[in-house]
Amino acid sequence: MPFDPQDNVFLLAGPVKIHPRVLQAMTHPAINHRGGEFKEINRELRTLTQYLFQTEGDVALLSGAGTAGLESVVSSLLHRTDRVLNLVNGKFSERMHELCQIHTTDPKALGFEWGRAIDPQAVAAELDAADYTAVTVCHNETSTGVTNPLQELAAVCRKKDALLIVDGITSVGGLPVRMDWGLDALVTGSQKCVAAPAGLAAVAVSSRAYERLHSHHAYYLDLKKHIDAWRDKGDTPFTPAIPLFLAFREALRLLKEEGLETRLRRTAQLGEACRAAAKAVDVELFADERVASNTVTAMRYPPNVPDEKFRAVLREEHRTIVSGGQDAIKGKVFRIGHMGICSFGDLAAGWTGIEATLAGFGHRFARGAAVAEVSRRL
Amino acid sequence: MPFDPQDNVFLLAGPVKIHPRVLQAMTHPAINHRGGEFKEINRELRTLTQYLFQTEGDVALLSGAGTAGLESVVSSLLHRTDRVLNLVNGKFSERMHELCQIHTTDPKALGFEWGRAIDPQAVAAELDAADYTAVTVCHNETSTGVTNPLQELAAVCRKKDALLIVDGITSVGGLPVRMDWGLDALVTGSQKCVAAPAGLAAVAVSSRAYERLHSHHAYYLDLKKHIDAWRDKGDTPFTPAIPLFLAFREALRLLKEEGLETRLRRTAQLGEACRAAAKAVDVELFADERVASNTVTAMRYPPNVPDEKFRAVLREEHRTIVSGGQDAIKGKVFRIGHMGICSFGDLAAGWTGIEATLAGFGHRFARGAAVAEVSRRL
Repeated sequence: MPFDPQDNVFLLAGPVKIHPRVLQAMTHPAINHRGGEFKEINRELRTLTQYLFQTEGDVALLSGAGTAGLESVVSSLLHRTDRVLNLVNGKFSERMHELCQIHTTDPKALGFEWGRAIDPQAVAAELDAADYTAVTVCHNETSTGVTNPLQELAAVCRKKDALLIVDGITSVGGLPVRMDWGLDALVTGSQKCVAAPAGLAAVAVSSRAYERLHSHHAYYLDLKKHIDAWRDKGDTPFTPAIPLFLAFREALRLLKEEGLETRLRRTAQLGEACRAAAKAVDVELFADERVASNTVTAMRYPPNVPDEKFRAVLREEHRTIVSGGQDAIKGKVFRIGHMGICSFGDLAAGWTGIEATLAGFGHRFARGAAVAEVSRRL
Repeated sequence: MPFDPQDNVFLLAGPVKIHPRVLQAMTHPAINHRGGEFKEINRELRTLTQYLFQTEGDVALLSGAGTAGLESVVSSLLHRTDRVLNLVNGKFSERMHELCQIHTTDPKALGFEWGRAIDPQAVAAELDAADYTAVTVCHNETSTGVTNPLQELAAVCRKKDALLIVDGITSVGGLPVRMDWGLDALVTGSQKCVAAPAGLAAVAVSSRAYERLHSHHAYYLDLKKHIDAWRDKGDTPFTPAIPLFLAFREALRLLKEEGLETRLRRTAQLGEACRAAAKAVDVELFADERVASNTVTAMRYPPNVPDEKFRAVLREEHRTIVSGGQDAIKGKVFRIGHMGICSFGDLAAGWTGIEATLAGFGHRFARGAAVAEVSRRL
């Protein structure tokens, strides 16, 4: 069946599939963003956002992409002369390094191989060798499907009293992550594990990070302004993206109805099922399996399976959308997102099309083996 | 009738009433923001945005509030040591001064009385007295309902070769404004004259401004990155707020169906009708009438009409939403937005409730006089 924009199997590494209830929430007629009704919405949203982050501390919701949330942290928490260590093992941790190059004088990138995890011992050694005010890490590298050992990294940073800034864009709401591991700032995007539309960034900060926030570098992304207005007045410092706030609330209500623990468990099972499916049809995982992500799986193309054609056939003949690779591994991998409201049924539907497409390009494997692995894990 | 969030007379100074077609556009299931379908959407959107700005030059669409659009210009066009002159006669021009204080060393604010227009001769004198790289102006001061003489100001700036940065948030798509008057950057927000939901900022730049753009101060708001990706690849540098892009496209289609000229003419007639309505019931305009805005009208409360109670009664008993005053004139004025898809019927409905509410607070006037002024102008 040809691609249908209204009815397809949507397995991007994010934005992800959106529940009809969430889509419908955006059709609410115009609301006075400075009136009581919207303050009530903000109060509920703030409580739900704290639930998402599993914190009673300060949170903010910014109208902008996940990167805007990261920049609000970097520009509001750090001073230009602060020495920052960027842990880099993929495209998104590289982006964090670029961001710190804008806002601090001389950040250092400590690189690790793409597809492997960041090594806490190497980080400890670097923190021993030089003084750093802050460390940045991408918890779940969406580009490679690797989950970094955040709790261990947090312990290393706390020991050296370095602030830890975490990109949790494809982990918060999908993987276990807790502010009380010793994180100082944690950022996520609306379009990933929360399964709302793209366009909002949620941020949580520790109390010591909050105390350090300043307004010297950023105006629209001044994090303290966003945190304070939301907490004290149920308000936002600038006109918010109202329909996205309503959609995010509905998506968080869905998350709470399922229960965060249940969602994390289900996401872990989906991750395991996806990896088993890949292996069953002789598709190699890109990530070191011991640290493979449960929200995003990156897989190497078998020989003679061409990236763009593969995804075009998958889309045009099997109505299935997956992600390609980025930057250094563009053309070499494809990626599946299995977070948010993705079900075992969605994953099986996706692998049905993937199996047919792989077979069409001459890859040899036991047909049905991938979907069987998915099905038997439900 | 008590307030109904789904069915009311929405006359805020922005966000404004949204057409059901625009609301429905947001319910589209998830789209691959890096796929061909979304590139097509971006191409249409870019052409429509050029139509909105009446330019064939460079434009961008950023996921964020109007202030994000202004900051993208200030941070990407100016260098820290650039000398900037901020023309200030209301809350939003003050905001521009605050923004320039973040991104340049020592901007100068040249103040004019709230409710009066900026005087081009005073600006010319200041530009004679000192060297400025750039001048900022808010074309239509939403806080006071004043339209500044932009074309004259542009001529003054060009004569001195100063860049002119324009906040057109409540003017673009509602008042005559042309890049070829000599503007260098023009910014608008989705939720004003375009009548789309809040959450996007559109920016147009002159070619000399484009040549000057740099990437030293901003990452998410790096304007050049946004302009180039949109023009060259139908793409965005960061994940866009997809539902808002779809809504903005639909709102611009509606604008084009009506025709920009027709919309501007209708908006001017609505502005005139609103001012006539106010005068007919002895409500004083806040703005100097010679420069009163056709998109937003600010009016002084008659004696003994209390701001918050007035707006509460208007809302709870007559389902009508108007804006209060801000900052220095908070409590002293109320404001009506009559831009976007606002009709004469909407304005008459609003004044019906306003008349009843004013009468309830003891203000004496000929009942029916305001709506009669609206009706006879259609």
